[in-house]
This record gives sequence, C-alpha cells and structure tokens, in this order.
Amino acid sequence: MTRFPLAGPCLAAVPLLASLSLPALAQVQVARSTPAVAETMVMNTNISQAQVMQAQQAWCDALLSISRAYRSGGFSQARATAEKVLDQAYGYGYGPVAFKPTLTSGAQTFRPTKQGALAYFVGGDPAYPNDKGFAIKPWDKCALRTQVIQLHGIVAITMGNVDLTDSSGKVTTVDKTWAFLREPDGETRIVLHHSSLPYQP
Amino acid sequence: MTRFPLAGPCLAAVPLLASLSLPALAQVQVARSTPAVAETMVMNTNISQAQVMQAQQAWCDALLSISRAYRSGGFSQARATAEKVLDQAYGYGYGPVAFKPTLTSGAQTFRPTKQGALAYFVGGDPAYPNDKGFAIKPWDKCALRTQVIQLHGIVAITMGNVDLTDSSGKVTTVDKTWAFLREPDGETRIVLHHSSLPYQP
Amino acid sequence: MTRFPLAGPCLAAVPLLASLSLPALAQVQVARSTPAVAETMVMNTNISQAQVMQAQQAWCDALLSISRAYRSGGFSQARATAEKVLDQAYGYGYGPVAFKPTLTSGAQTFRPTKQGALAYFVGGDPAYPNDKGFAIKPWDKCALRTQVIQLHGIVAITMGNVDLTDSSGKVTTVDKTWAFLREPDGETRIVLHHSSLPYQP
Amino acid sequence: MTRFPLAGPCLAAVPLLASLSLPALAQVQVARSTPAVAETMVMNTNISQAQVMQAQQAWCDALLSISRAYRSGGFSQARATAEKVLDQAYGYGYGPVAFKPTLTSGAQTFRPTKQGALAYFVGGDPAYPNDKGFAIKPWDKCALRTQVIQLHGIVAITMGNVDLTDSSGKVTTVDKTWAFLREPDGETRIVLHHSSLPYQP
Repeated sequence: MTRFPLAGPCLAAVPLLASLSLPALAQVQVARSTPAVAETMVMNTNISQAQVMQAQQAWCDALLSISRAYRSGGFSQARATAEKVLDQAYGYGYGPVAFKPTLTSGAQTFRPTKQGALAYFVGGDPAYPNDKGFAIKPWDKCALRTQVIQLHGIVAITMGNVDLTDSSGKVTTVDKTWAFLREPDGETRIVLHHSSLPYQP
Repeated sequence: MTRFPLAGPCLAAVPLLASLSLPALAQVQVARSTPAVAETMVMNTNISQAQVMQAQQAWCDALLSISRAYRSGGFSQARATAEKVLDQAYGYGYGPVAFKPTLTSGAQTFRPTKQGALAYFVGGDPAYPNDKGFAIKPWDKCALRTQVIQLHGIVAITMGNVDLTDSSGKVTTVDKTWAFLREPDGETRIVLHHSSLPYQP
Repeated sequence: MTRFPLAGPCLAAVPLLASLSLPALAQVQVARSTPAVAETMVMNTNISQAQVMQAQQAWCDALLSISRAYRSGGFSQARATAEKVLDQAYGYGYGPVAFKPTLTSGAQTFRPTKQGALAYFVGGDPAYPNDKGFAIKPWDKCALRTQVIQLHGIVAITMGNVDLTDSSGKVTTVDKTWAFLREPDGETRIVLHHSSLPYQP
Repeated sequence: MTRFPLAGPCLAAVPLLASLSLPALAQVQVARSTPAVAETMVMNTNISQAQVMQAQQAWCDALLSISRAYRSGGFSQARATAEKVLDQAYGYGYGPVAFKPTLTSGAQTFRPTKQGALAYFVGGDPAYPNDKGFAIKPWDKCALRTQVIQLHGIVAITMGNVDLTDSSGKVTTVDKTWAFLREPDGETRIVLHHSSLPYQP
C-alpha cells in the first residue's frame, strides 16, 4: 500500500551491514578498553569505494549492452536498451544531469535532459541532428584506468581514462570524470559525466 | 519496467525548480556583470528549511492520525495506521533508526527496529510488555516549538519542544530531537528521534 | 601568508590515506579482472566509524579533564579547561549547536550558544542561575554503551548510554544522542547533544 | 591557544544567518498556523547557489590575477601569486584533487597534486616539461556561461563554458566542470576541475 519498496531486500541487508561493521567497531573498542557493544547497529548512507568502482564498471557494461543490442536487434532494440540503462544508471529523475559527452559541440554540447542523453547514445533524434549514436558503434571492450577517487557522503567523484576497443581492435581513449549519487536505499546513479578526447599538443 | 518512479512528477518539477532558482542566480550574475544564463538548471538534493518544518509537522499529523484511528477503529485500525505511518515517516528501510522514545526504559530504552517502534506507538506486542501504546492516547493537539535547525545536505537536525494536548486538555511537554534524511527524489524520513520528559530540578 | 593551516599534517596524511585505501581498491579491481591502478589516490571527507568512536571517547575524556582541573586548580582552572574543550569538541564556531544537557529545564533547557554550554559544564554564570557545573562534579569514569551508529558523509549520529562514575563509586546513567560534524581537514566536532535521565516508569 | 579560528567572524555571522532564515521559517509556520518561534537559530553547512557562483567567479579572478602578476612582476611574482591562489582556491590540503587541465596530455594529463597544478598554471617546472604556464598568458577577461548547477550538501557541481579573452582580443572557449567543497566555517575550495577544448566535428 505504501510506496516504500525496501522492506524485503533492505531488512535482509541490515543484519549483513551490522555484521560487517561489528568487527571494526569491536576492534576500536578493544583498543580503548571499553566493553564490547554487542547490540550496536550501523546505518551507513555513504557511497563506498567498492560501490564507486562497481558503478564505473556498470557504465562500461551498459555501453557494451547497447552496442550488442544494436548488433542483434537494430536501432529499436538499441534504443529500448538505452532507455532502460539511462533510467537505471543516470540521475535524470532527480533533475538536470551535468553531462558533457565526448563528441558533442556548439549549442548542443551539454545534455542536461534524458532526451539529449538518449540522442547521444543511439542517435536518430531529429532534434539532435549531429548525433550518430555513440553507443551503437561496435564496441567490444571498455576498460577503466581510474586516477582519482573522492568520497563525499552520498556523492562520489572519479577521474581517469576509459579505453574503448571496437570490433576492429581500434582503441579510443577518453579523459573521463564522473560523479555518482547514492540513494539511502543503495541505488547509485550518475549525476555528472564529463568526457573529452585527449588534448593533442 | 524499471524501478524508477520519478519520470512523471520530477520532470514536471524541474522547470519549477529552475524558475525558482533563476532569479537568485540572475541577481548574483547581475551583481558581477556577467551575462544572464537562461539555460542554467539546478539539481538540489539538500533538505531545505521549509521541508524540515513540514517533516516535523508531518510527525505531529501522524501521531494524531494514529490516535484518531484508535478512537474510530480500535487497536487493529490504529496498528494499520501506525504501520503505514512508520513506513512513510521513519527510515527503518535504510537500517537502524536512532529512536529513544519518551517513555521507554531499561533494556528496551532504544528502538532501532520497526517492530520496537510499532510496539511503542500502539502497544500490544508481548515482546515489549511495558509498552502501553503512546500514540493511542486521546491526543487532540501537537504543537512544535523549534529551537535549533541544522541543515547538512541530505541530513537535517531539529531540537526543541513538542506540546501534546489530550482530550481532557492536559498538556504534556517533551524535549525533542529529530534528524531527517532526504532521498534524492524528495522523500524525507526520520532517522533519529530522541524524546525525553523535561528534567525536574 | 595564506590561512591554510594544513600544509604540514595534511600533506603527511595524504600518502597514509592513499596507502590505506589502495589495498581495498586493488581487491575490488582484482575481483573484476581490471588492471591495477597504481596511481589512484583517494580523498575521503566522510567521518568513519572509528572516528565516531574516538569522538565519543574524546567527550568522555574532556568531561573527566574538566573534573580533574577543578579538583587540582579550582573554578578558574576548570573554566579554562572547559573553554578549551568546548572550542575543540563542540561546533559553536559553525553556528547554533543543538545541545540539551541532562540537568537543564524551563526556558534554559537548550544551550545553542557557547556561553550556555560553558555555564552548564562549570557553573558560576549569573545568567544561568540554576547551573551548578555538571563537569566539576568528582567524575572518575565515563563509559560508553553505543546502541546505534549512523554515517552520513560529514555527519555521524550515535545513540546509546553513558555511565558516569563519581569518586564515591555512584554511577549515573544517561540516555545520550550525539551528532558529529567533520571538517575536510579531519577535525570532528559535536553539533548535536541530547542527554536525558532514564525514564522512571 | 586553540586552533579554532572562527570565534570572531562566525559569532558575528550567526545572527545574520538567523535573521536571514527567520522570514522563511515564519512563513512556513504561519502557513501551518503554528506559533512564531522567535528563538529558532539555524546552522547551515550547505554550499548555496550564490556561493557556487562566487566560487566560479573567484576562479576567473584568480586566473587573471596570475596573468597580471606575470606581466607586472615576471615569473617569480606569477609563481608566488599562483601558490597563494592554489592554497586558497583548491582543496589540495584535503587530498588528491581531480584536476584535468585543458592542455595536458599523456602520462601527465591528470594533476592530483599541488605541484602538478602549479606547474600547469605557471610552467617552469622541469618535472612537467610540456607545461608552458597556462595562467601567464596575457588573459584580460574570463566569462562564465553556466549550464548546470548541482547542490549536494558540502559539495556543489557546475558545468558550462568559460570564455577567456587575451590581450589581442582572441577568445578561447573551454568546456568546464567544477566541484567545490565547503568547510563548515564557510571556506569553499575546488576538488574537481575538468577542462577540455570543444570537440571539433
């Protein structure tokens, strides 16, 4: 009846969280000679480093899934996959996403709306005539070389390179910045994505 | 298909948010002689002062709704109302809530689980034999006297007094602290609730 | 010349942070078969569970230090110690602290200013005539029994009991809630403190 | 004696903050028919939209100040200015900053340390042989065209264009992303800076 979707998975997750946290807690307390606190429980809404790494990998997986969908089912299947991926991986539901894709320019450089992001990933939107569909290229591999990770509560920032390999073996490297936002129930979404081709001196 | 429930209301909300924000933004920019930024859009995941005041009032409303449900429908209706209210207003779905109700003591002083909170509000749980059901008393009024408000991103803290008036006109005053947690989609829930009777010198 | 006070300790701390973080990161990446990221560095502004436990213990230590100062140097030394402790441990420098001490009542129940906190801890302030100086009692021990810990970025919340033992061996137990705020440079201060005597059924 | 540097300005700021906040608060309460709360005080550690705009402008001002210092005092004065500006405007004191300058490439693309940032801005560091000193070019104007602003507690993100005009009137436009981190005492520093030349289709 209520909107609250967490009763099942989250109640299951709480004991796990508590059990993961207790050893560290016990260690601190032993070090300070205070008695064990068996009933202590922990709520942690921060995005962790492991979750950041998973969220980055999820972006790679999403890109490859759109590319595969295009090869197996053409534009309509690629578009359906991209729609789903965008809802899952990007925070357009919260407001404008700071998205500067690799290959956009001029008045359409930034894509703060879901429509603009969808156009960039699969093309075919007359409102974005220069978009050829970045994700429907025949991408085979997506590798991360993370240089900096920042953890700020529900926000995490990463910067580094992403190496994309296509079906001919050609590698495209981009300079990449992401910020991820974590909901209290554990969902993690991209709210910032700045991608650029390396500077050519 | 996706879990994402925000497409409708949130896309509608974004232009409103942007329009609310633009005057302030324009003002800053005018003061600095930079050109207007018509396309700027704002995502704001912070809990605002107005939302904090609403969330406090929502707690009062919830308490009164359980009391009314008891008077009109007895224990079973009070319990059903309390279940719904707890899911909506408290963050038990995220993990243990820091809840110290007014009238608990001993080993059952703290109620980090939803079961413990439900027992406190409506009673009737053999696992909590001292709980008489705080919310099923004949409360008629619930007034807030907030002393301190703190805004820390998705977390907001309030401290002050709550005056509860019952059907006989008797007023019970408590010292009250809350912390609220805001989800990126705008839902706000209590994660900390410390209530105590005033110290009698 | 600049205000920046971190050059010394913080530059020293960064490599430590990086080295602490890298194993966890490497582990995640191995699990995902991505190459090691030797240059990855981590900035983490969140308050950790260990820091929360230390901050709680620091409150106990501070209380005992004021008590000791009173016994060795009288009121003036107790007051000087309390001043120092308040600046170090409480966030009055950021704005109003949500402080409801154990033994305050009426119009002076809440102590959002440093003056009110100082009066509570050492007494002797004619503006707070009921304050006898909670911290100058002959406290010998301060033990924590933490029930709930919440980690929300720079804010951490704890709830539980504190057991205070005086020089005659008498134990006073209070129900205690704290919220701590962490600065990016690592300083941690109390911004919420609600203390109450256990309810007597 | 204590490290706490806020006693003066911050105590002065609190009443201002409270007075700014009270009208909004009163409005909410009137709307809900609850009595006025004259003593309510507010602590707000969030970065505001106005502060974000100021922090962006401060970056422009800092760039121009380095350029002017170079023209008036040569490399040594430019370097001294840049050192000061970096301490004030960037968060290297907290850990690695996610900094991808406009004109860097290869193994030195990212500049997570202050040394790397200083080399980029003024050049002359043999460890960064390709750095010519971006800030010592004869910049005369720096204008912001902000497209997206995000407010997440102590973190704020902006994305948009920056137009730099040199002494010959030539305009260089870059795609720019910043994240700012705010300390509880109000200091705001850059922790993320991704700048890239517009994509040339």
